[in-house]
Amino acid sequence: METDAVSALAGRAAELLSACRSTSTDPADRSAAATDRSGFVPASLPDGVVYAESVDDVVQAVRLAASHGVPLVPRGAGTGLAAASSAGAGEVVLDLSRMNRILDLDPVEQIAVVEPGVLNAELNAAAAGHGLFYAPDPASTAICSIGGNIATNAGGMRCAKYGVTRESVLGLRVVLADGRELRTGRRTIKGVTGYDLTALMIGSEGALGVVVEATLRLRPAPVTTATAAAFFPDVAAAAAAASAVIAARIQPSLLELVDGPTLEAIDLALGTDYRRRGGAFLLGQTDGFGAQAEMDVLAGAVEPFATEVLRADDPVAAEALLAARREAIPSLEKLGRVSIGDIGVPRGRLAEAVTGLQEISERTGVRIFTIAHAADGNLHPMIVVRPGESVTEGPAKTALGEMFHLAKRLGGTLTGEHGVGLLKRDWLRDELGDVSLDVQHAIRRALDPQAILNPGKAI
Amino acid sequence: METDAVSALAGRAAELLSACRSTSTDPADRSAAATDRSGFVPASLPDGVVYAESVDDVVQAVRLAASHGVPLVPRGAGTGLAAASSAGAGEVVLDLSRMNRILDLDPVEQIAVVEPGVLNAELNAAAAGHGLFYAPDPASTAICSIGGNIATNAGGMRCAKYGVTRESVLGLRVVLADGRELRTGRRTIKGVTGYDLTALMIGSEGALGVVVEATLRLRPAPVTTATAAAFFPDVAAAAAAASAVIAARIQPSLLELVDGPTLEAIDLALGTDYRRRGGAFLLGQTDGFGAQAEMDVLAGAVEPFATEVLRADDPVAAEALLAARREAIPSLEKLGRVSIGDIGVPRGRLAEAVTGLQEISERTGVRIFTIAHAADGNLHPMIVVRPGESVTEGPAKTALGEMFHLAKRLGGTLTGEHGVGLLKRDWLRDELGDVSLDVQHAIRRALDPQAILNPGKAI
Ligand SMILES: Cc1cc2nc3c(=O)[nH]c(=O)nc-3n(C[C@H](O)[C@H](O)[C@H](O)COP(=O)(O)OP(=O)(O)OC[C@H]3O[C@@H](n4cnc5c(N)ncnc54)[C@H](O)[C@@H]3O)c2cc1C
Ligand SMILES: Cc1cc2nc3c(=O)[nH]c(=O)nc-3n(C[C@H](O)[C@H](O)[C@H](O)COP(=O)(O)OP(=O)(O)OC[C@H]3O[C@@H](n4cnc5c(N)ncnc54)[C@H](O)[C@@H]3O)c2cc1C
Repeated sequence: METDAVSALAGRAAELLSACRSTSTDPADRSAAATDRSGFVPASLPDGVVYAESVDDVVQAVRLAASHGVPLVPRGAGTGLAAASSAGAGEVVLDLSRMNRILDLDPVEQIAVVEPGVLNAELNAAAAGHGLFYAPDPASTAICSIGGNIATNAGGMRCAKYGVTRESVLGLRVVLADGRELRTGRRTIKGVTGYDLTALMIGSEGALGVVVEATLRLRPAPVTTATAAAFFPDVAAAAAAASAVIAARIQPSLLELVDGPTLEAIDLALGTDYRRRGGAFLLGQTDGFGAQAEMDVLAGAVEPFATEVLRADDPVAAEALLAARREAIPSLEKLGRVSIGDIGVPRGRLAEAVTGLQEISERTGVRIFTIAHAADGNLHPMIVVRPGESVTEGPAKTALGEMFHLAKRLGGTLTGEHGVGLLKRDWLRDELGDVSLDVQHAIRRALDPQAILNPGKAI
Repeated sequence: METDAVSALAGRAAELLSACRSTSTDPADRSAAATDRSGFVPASLPDGVVYAESVDDVVQAVRLAASHGVPLVPRGAGTGLAAASSAGAGEVVLDLSRMNRILDLDPVEQIAVVEPGVLNAELNAAAAGHGLFYAPDPASTAICSIGGNIATNAGGMRCAKYGVTRESVLGLRVVLADGRELRTGRRTIKGVTGYDLTALMIGSEGALGVVVEATLRLRPAPVTTATAAAFFPDVAAAAAAASAVIAARIQPSLLELVDGPTLEAIDLALGTDYRRRGGAFLLGQTDGFGAQAEMDVLAGAVEPFATEVLRADDPVAAEALLAARREAIPSLEKLGRVSIGDIGVPRGRLAEAVTGLQEISERTGVRIFTIAHAADGNLHPMIVVRPGESVTEGPAKTALGEMFHLAKRLGGTLTGEHGVGLLKRDWLRDELGDVSLDVQHAIRRALDPQAILNPGKAI
């Protein structure tokens, strides 16, 4: 941009900020709002932050942004892994974290109506009081917002059985790029009036509208849960076991794979002996009235590949087995800066994917640790670099690119649940093709012709 | 339209028809393609029918339609209940029933790739050979096409547990209104690259693109199924029992309600004694490893409201219980012309909905028989008129309008699974509101600026 244009934009952004109720131009606040948890380092800071406390605040900010031509970047809790909420000079951040009330929790209908800033774990805690749960459970549950979950179509461990965010959202209240309020969907389980605007908004990374309220489906908490874990000689055997579980035609509620290098990192952090026990680890759960019987089938499918199978008979034992998976990311974070990858492959090609990731690591010299939501074929290869090194440039970027090509070669996708944001745009056309991208841009133009909302992200 | 414009359009339609490979202008074929199973009686016939046998045929027809400005109406099996595939003078029907091959059925990935004309039951038969099933099961399974299911986001009985069509479609191949080919989605279970164009196409009633191939998710057939049925003094008690099942926090795979008048019609057709045994009937199934234990809870929830609870111990007994529900529509068809309604309400308001329907029947003098997918709050109030009487005009239309207002008053929707088509457009703005309709039209314009594909339907 020309210097004149930049300073004109800065002037307009300043006007917007001065007209809104609760804002900040403090460098510390701008810096806190400039990026997410992806490791992306922004080249500049946004001009300021608007803290929305109500739908009216959002409408006002969006209207001002539209009339002033200032790009607005919606922000939930900033835990994203694709730099989708990152913002720079000339942009203003619209922070939704203060809109954090659970407006309604109807245990009879098994529905919750929430503001976007409610944290995933807060909703789950409230639902648990009624024997219910909200299914999408990103590992970031304690720190990520429902609005961000919706804008990224977040997944998690129990999505294996209960589906991702899209399967749990019944309706939305959205502020469009011109400030109009749109209501999508409904409070009923089914409904087919008009096009599915709810699904269109889900996963659109804040670029088609700002979610200001969501009507969510809750589900009955399972009456029983059964847990097992197994160790394998190597990760290929663990992946083969995971495929065998799918082939056994059961529906695990959770099936998580952890590779050898990650087990080593956990041992280093916690003093455990996982790596000595095996070169890879698989954790499975089944739930419902037949959880134990279904677990028998799961364990039977895994056994031929495993060196050791452990079953948990009570919640305490189950929690101990879950620990290995839960501690994976925190343990890696002790080793250096972590970039959490997110490719998806057909479920039967998991073994090829993990082998391919090892090869990429050897070829690029980048350290890669892999965990996976195995029942969905969704792998999280985690690149760990030394403090100070970039996770989005240089060798790490090369490795990221190779991961995408691996996924593509296996018939997969460059992102299973974290989204595209800024980080994965380079490979998007390759995956989607020209026609799809054209259609997406046409929809974007139809809804936001000025490109006010989160420009440059997602597509 | 002016007479000149009509004859110009007819000329252009004739040109299109003569340029395509397999077509008909025979009045019998045009008449067969003019409407669906909704009871809608078209005022005129379409100018002809194109029978597509390949993607190329579809591309050619759509390109010609676009260049000639001729509206094209995609048609699957013509079993729709909303007049969404009806076509009249100046329009050409694009019949997809000959594109009926199952292209791939991968039992390891539990995925099928099919052409749009494959019948729902054909796919299910093929999947059954591998211990799998395709979840959406409209009562029309034997006669409706996967393409039509996708374009209407069809539901069915087991959607209670397994979701509607949207939850089973992973990706689509679509011919857009300008003849370009779009691929949406993927073969993996999860994926979040770009906006969710798959979901946007699902339920769009052929107005955003022609589905020429679909990648579908299959699921493992349940290892066990448990079935029970109960009779109640009246339909309000049956509805209360259904709500009690939901409140018991279990997940029935099927929960179907049949009201007293429908039981009478079945008795009349089959010589059974259902109506004598109760004023309403509720059928429940649970499935999976814990089916029997879950059924114990279901039966326990129903019992306080019922006069008689029957449990089926084997498949033959289960089939006998299912018969009452299966025979409902055929039995009503013996009484006169049937218009199958389709409102949705929050699940806890089922009893109010059935009472409201009885009142509408009394007020309008129109005979209404009700069955419902109770676990989803999706009711099918069926209007039966004498042969020769219209089900879309006069008192029947008044009753339809009142049904919609009832649904709206209860926080529901005017269509749970059958769609809007031509029949329900009058009430659409009332349900969706101006902003939503504006957005939908903007999307439609972005994808089909000339309004070539199925104009006047859905929105
Ligand atoms: C340790 C860790 C573990 C994680 N595990 C998982 C996991 O298992 N599964 C998974 O899917 N993700 C995971 N994530 C990623 C992240 O938590 C999710 O993407 C989450 O959904 C982001 O929510 P947020 O509130 O932090 O959104 P942000 O990061 O603030 O924003 C994400 C995107 O949503 C948009 N947005 C936010 N709020 C709104 C709104 N109200 N309206 C419109 N747009 C909005 C932003 O513009 C941006 O495009 C993990 C992250 C971390 C740090
Ligand atoms: C006895 C009976 C019972 C029924 N029970 C149910 C039920 O339980 N649940 C339910 O949901 N429905 C039910 N239906 C309604 C109907 O079967 C469904 O709506 C079905 O999905 C329509 O499929 P079809 O192939 O017949 O489509 P059609 O009637 O031919 O077309 C329906 C719509 O889809 C469009 N379309 C068709 N094929 C394509 C394509 N390839 N690309 C783009 N657009 C296309 C058409 O333009 C039209 O808008 C029932 C119908 C009957 C007669």
